[in-house]
Amino acid sequence: MRDLMAITARPDVISLAGGLPDTSAFPPASFAAQMTRIAQESSAEALQYGPTEGFEGTRDCIRELMAAEGMEPDPEDIIVTTGGQQAIDLVCKTLVDPGDAVICEGPTYPGAVPVFSSYEAETYQIEMDEDGMRVDELEALMRRLELDGCRPKFVYTVPSFQNPAGVTLSGERRRRLVEIAREYELVVVEDNPYGLLRFEGDPLPPLYQLDGGDYVVYVGTFSKILSPGIRLGWCVAPPPLIEKIVLGKQAADLCTSTLAQYFVIEYFAEERWRDYVDRLVEIYRGRRDAMLEALERHFPEQAEWTRPAGGLFVWATLPEYIDTGDLLAKALRDDVAFVPGSAAYVDGRGSSAMRLNFSGSGEDEIREGIRRIGRVVREQVALYETITGEHPRPARVSTEHGDPADVLPLRRREMRR
Amino acid sequence: MRDLMAITARPDVISLAGGLPDTSAFPPASFAAQMTRIAQESSAEALQYGPTEGFEGTRDCIRELMAAEGMEPDPEDIIVTTGGQQAIDLVCKTLVDPGDAVICEGPTYPGAVPVFSSYEAETYQIEMDEDGMRVDELEALMRRLELDGCRPKFVYTVPSFQNPAGVTLSGERRRRLVEIAREYELVVVEDNPYGLLRFEGDPLPPLYQLDGGDYVVYVGTFSKILSPGIRLGWCVAPPPLIEKIVLGKQAADLCTSTLAQYFVIEYFAEERWRDYVDRLVEIYRGRRDAMLEALERHFPEQAEWTRPAGGLFVWATLPEYIDTGDLLAKALRDDVAFVPGSAAYVDGRGSSAMRLNFSGSGEDEIREGIRRIGRVVREQVALYETITGEHPRPARVSTEHGDPADVLPLRRREMRR
Repeated sequence: MRDLMAITARPDVISLAGGLPDTSAFPPASFAAQMTRIAQESSAEALQYGPTEGFEGTRDCIRELMAAEGMEPDPEDIIVTTGGQQAIDLVCKTLVDPGDAVICEGPTYPGAVPVFSSYEAETYQIEMDEDGMRVDELEALMRRLELDGCRPKFVYTVPSFQNPAGVTLSGERRRRLVEIAREYELVVVEDNPYGLLRFEGDPLPPLYQLDGGDYVVYVGTFSKILSPGIRLGWCVAPPPLIEKIVLGKQAADLCTSTLAQYFVIEYFAEERWRDYVDRLVEIYRGRRDAMLEALERHFPEQAEWTRPAGGLFVWATLPEYIDTGDLLAKALRDDVAFVPGSAAYVDGRGSSAMRLNFSGSGEDEIREGIRRIGRVVREQVALYETITGEHPRPARVSTEHGDPADVLPLRRREMRR
Repeated sequence: MRDLMAITARPDVISLAGGLPDTSAFPPASFAAQMTRIAQESSAEALQYGPTEGFEGTRDCIRELMAAEGMEPDPEDIIVTTGGQQAIDLVCKTLVDPGDAVICEGPTYPGAVPVFSSYEAETYQIEMDEDGMRVDELEALMRRLELDGCRPKFVYTVPSFQNPAGVTLSGERRRRLVEIAREYELVVVEDNPYGLLRFEGDPLPPLYQLDGGDYVVYVGTFSKILSPGIRLGWCVAPPPLIEKIVLGKQAADLCTSTLAQYFVIEYFAEERWRDYVDRLVEIYRGRRDAMLEALERHFPEQAEWTRPAGGLFVWATLPEYIDTGDLLAKALRDDVAFVPGSAAYVDGRGSSAMRLNFSGSGEDEIREGIRRIGRVVREQVALYETITGEHPRPARVSTEHGDPADVLPLRRREMRR
């Protein structure tokens, strides 16, 4: 991944790999004005250490953001973190001992995989379809684990516009997931970086709202609605847990950047953050459309992909004989990049899938990038058919849910034990 | 500690507790100019994700800083971290498994104690005197551990103007420590936040310079020469180790703040960072002098303290019947704070000592703060003598090194096994 990011930093490479928001959309004049105000009015404070749990002002901004999605956390339950990534890390640091069971979606956020591994969690991945995580499968797993005397430490989920799959957990499944959490006293870690980036349809209630914060630990970030370069995220958890997370944070990096927090406080004081989110939604909707059209045009019939209603990512699945790790090497020779699907699994699955990002490139770049990837995919398909004489059916699997063409083709019944 | 920091944030409290640099000395106009330049010239980049190991430009600044102390690290061996604290955490994350032995000074940096604990290290603390860590004791410990078949993962040291003791490892001991590292293949983690903050005398070579980076892992920070609020530090380690640290960093928080790195790059481009360090040295020297004079005037003869030639801290030791944890509660009623000595030990030692910071308060505040603490200490001494009828000797312990009055009274021969 490190080398991949280095290669994709080359200006001639079209990268659909990273999860980069379009920070060029942020008005530099606003950025300059906020920073000048901070320098003039509170230079010494902005350059100084801050409290480990974050400033009250930052937590007010967080409450405003969460209120926009229907949540009302207690300020005392909020800790400001060095990006959402640190929140995931601290939750694991606090809860997971080696060998403990952790549950997540399959595929899951590629950045969570090394965290679970670093704490030596025994990670179970629940399959998804177009309505998000199969909570019936989650329940079946919980029953099985209970019989084995195993209590998972938590289930980690990105319910809205999931990274990497782009699908969203349905309202019905959200309610059922919160019920399961109560029945099994299972902590749910809800990671919601993209909730406000909805392109169409009505918002669904966050799990935190449905549960009231008893079993749901919430992870949020300013990365996708403002800037990832300021490394500012947060975690909301009930008192006994948040106290431990604060201690973990103190050991990890003492406190979150004061400068970044002052920047956010100044930015929110302008009361224009909603306008900026609206602007991002407009931009990303156009890019998503460009990507879906280009996939339709350039990918072979043997490929499938999801149709996200928000967020940053499309997940495409190719015939099983194509290894997207190998494919990436070929694609890079054509100056285009994506994230191979195996990065989203703990056990090497996902090897014929890929994550495609549409937030970080312009529409023309996206069209050209997909054209290049499509060409490499078609070559592989043609090669396979020439060698084997076979014309295998698409990897698509029939399903009881909705239009088969919209379905996330992620049915692998075996789970890692 | 969390509550202590909250109390000391009250404006009426004189806090000699935190390790706060004087960020009010940094010129707000310079801060504003740098930020405006970033906003005008590279807003989108400064708000975007960056590489996990940090930008090349940041690593150039780091090399310039290290060169000022005689070190020439390979840029490939440097990782930019979220403050020096994260560097310590990542080194532990990479090297320490539960039960592994780790060695540090006694007292050690209070922020390192929870890190060692969180990785369940078996921590050994080596006593110090006015010449820093007793490397003869370190060698004796290494021999003993070798007989037990135990190989410590590293020895952690702050050789210059140690936090919390204020003492500096002598040149002779530096050379011997580097020899011991080679003899025993022992990793030395050299944490050097204060090296450039020398008030008098000639600089001593960093361990990294003496060793050439074979066994010495170097931890640095911009916190004490620029700003702790930007959370920018670094670690230098040889290739096999630095690769693992980069992976750990990726899981911990993906990358270090781009905004903070751009700020440092702009700041260093002005080529005035040395002037600012000189200015800090002037300010802190005056404050150290004010503190030492006030200690002389207000502390009873039963107390002792170190006389640092640089850095941020004085370490004071009281008669053993005084518990500085209890004393702090009394001091807070008089609106003054310090860090109780037990925070610098893994095993509750240091309970009659205290760390006093002189960088974060003005000279008058320091004098008044020491006066208030001195009054509480004198009350405790008088109470003890009234109750017991005893007039015990000072806690000072005789020593073979130099002037007894200058000696750090930290002789407790038993070490934790």
